[in-house]
Amino acid sequence: MATCDHTIHGAHHHFGWDRSIPPVAAVAPGDSVEFECVDASGGQLDAESTLAAIAELDFDRINPVTGPIFIDGAEPGDAVKVTFENFTPTSSGTMGTAKGFGWTANIPGFGLLADQFPDPALNIWIYDAADFTPALYGPGGRVPLKPFAGTVGLALAEEGLHSVVPPRRVGGNMDIRDLTAGTTLYLPVEVAGGLFSIGDTHAAQGDGEVCGTAIESPMNVALTLDLIKDAGLKTPRYTTPGPVTRHLDEKGYEVTTGVGTDLFEGARAAVAQMVDLLSAQTGMAAVEAYMLCSVCGDLRISEIVDQPNWIVSFYFPRLVLD
Amino acid sequence: MATCDHTIHGAHHHFGWDRSIPPVAAVAPGDSVEFECVDASGGQLDAESTLAAIAELDFDRINPVTGPIFIDGAEPGDAVKVTFENFTPTSSGTMGTAKGFGWTANIPGFGLLADQFPDPALNIWIYDAADFTPALYGPGGRVPLKPFAGTVGLALAEEGLHSVVPPRRVGGNMDIRDLTAGTTLYLPVEVAGGLFSIGDTHAAQGDGEVCGTAIESPMNVALTLDLIKDAGLKTPRYTTPGPVTRHLDEKGYEVTTGVGTDLFEGARAAVAQMVDLLSAQTGMAAVEAYMLCSVCGDLRISEIVDQPNWIVSFYFPRLVLD
Repeated sequence: MATCDHTIHGAHHHFGWDRSIPPVAAVAPGDSVEFECVDASGGQLDAESTLAAIAELDFDRINPVTGPIFIDGAEPGDAVKVTFENFTPTSSGTMGTAKGFGWTANIPGFGLLADQFPDPALNIWIYDAADFTPALYGPGGRVPLKPFAGTVGLALAEEGLHSVVPPRRVGGNMDIRDLTAGTTLYLPVEVAGGLFSIGDTHAAQGDGEVCGTAIESPMNVALTLDLIKDAGLKTPRYTTPGPVTRHLDEKGYEVTTGVGTDLFEGARAAVAQMVDLLSAQTGMAAVEAYMLCSVCGDLRISEIVDQPNWIVSFYFPRLVLD
Repeated sequence: MATCDHTIHGAHHHFGWDRSIPPVAAVAPGDSVEFECVDASGGQLDAESTLAAIAELDFDRINPVTGPIFIDGAEPGDAVKVTFENFTPTSSGTMGTAKGFGWTANIPGFGLLADQFPDPALNIWIYDAADFTPALYGPGGRVPLKPFAGTVGLALAEEGLHSVVPPRRVGGNMDIRDLTAGTTLYLPVEVAGGLFSIGDTHAAQGDGEVCGTAIESPMNVALTLDLIKDAGLKTPRYTTPGPVTRHLDEKGYEVTTGVGTDLFEGARAAVAQMVDLLSAQTGMAAVEAYMLCSVCGDLRISEIVDQPNWIVSFYFPRLVLD
């Protein structure tokens, strides 16, 4: 990776979206930028953290994003074009730079099955920082890694501070696991300069991020920011340069379904049944199976037209436990 | 493909699910069965059909299923294990046996964007029956084929006739595009013998089947029926022996998103924006883009935990138009 035109240090992060936050840099369309991204806990968790740290989490420091960046010439109606170039894990504590670190937690009150998993749980992942070698899951399994940034967005037109938790039409905490190196993302601009920020880097995640967390892992992200004038874009869109699931799909999938009139309840049913299936097959505790589903299993809508019942399917890649 | 233990002729089809329909055959667990499946129009459409045929469709003859089959020893609480072995297209009209035929239609009042596409539309596909060579789409594009049966199910415990349209906990019109050769499907048994039927064969479909139809194509299906006693299964589940999207993914995807509090509306927004994008990129009429999305594009739930906004993404495989 060649040196980027700009480096934005991790100290330049903010909590939530607010168009009044002053930009930390201005860039020209086509410039490359390297962002140091703090992990989603804002540094409250590290490779030595234990379960007690989940209970002590300060939610005011959750999900910092690095930025914002003013893109010269960006005006409402344009789109910012983001090309992801490279993800580099940063080290944690005493582990040294050769290793990457990540955490996955069940945080009480958060996640698709929060009612079924009221107790906190934590798994620490250590992986090879050079090549993102598949990470061992303590309770069993080996998860292929494919890093991306969970939160990528621009400032909203509406004034005031907006929570970082929900994604919106300008992007934000989208948690789209295919925003990996080589992918191009388009975001609609609502304020002058766009005011781009990024964070919440993940070493791996499944579609849905069902337990609410991925493999949360601090990384530097190198990307190029460009501008499409008068793009007429309503919500984010993206282009992947190649396959998106080949790191997972080689041995096929175990799949559970939810059948009914509501897609959200269908997703809950499909995931709950996969948790039961994995627990029965491996002896893993249910909450461990749930967290494993979050980092590598995928929610898909199999059909959405056979009234009044839709089918949501949850795909768990068999190679993880093979 | 070796000869199956049983052959069920296409004349043995029924409309809707009803536990009182007498079985057309009884099989032992482990038996192989070949089913002749009529297409979803019940033979009302063929390779020479024109748009006028959509207006004249008799909906009482829609979606016939071949069966039912009594599986010896099957009792409520068991699961029927279905292993799909082979799909063989049947010929239509004067086309000869070397060619397979399929149809995709926009049927007024049916489909995810029915409000936006009120007029009927029809595309006839002709493909190589021997190897399912990618099918040309008249308005532009080439769609890789991967045949499966859209409707696979058992009889419901509740007496009376139940519409074939919605899938239910015993399966039915699931339209799960990964129920292809080699895949194993498990269905919960609710009546003695299970009463298995199958139909609605598709040469290709995307996750969601967004316009309401796939490449609807008459085929013979060879499969094995087996029995798992006391399976404790709530809804269908399945196991794929290998990758599920490699026929589509080589050149990556164009992806649009829907962001909001409702997954159904998110899916509608994502598909509508893909229709706009494909129309703009290719000059294809919107309804043609919509039908093309239905046969090869995929609805995925990117995140379902960042309250209150979820993201549904629609993945269109770039190799189709490349």
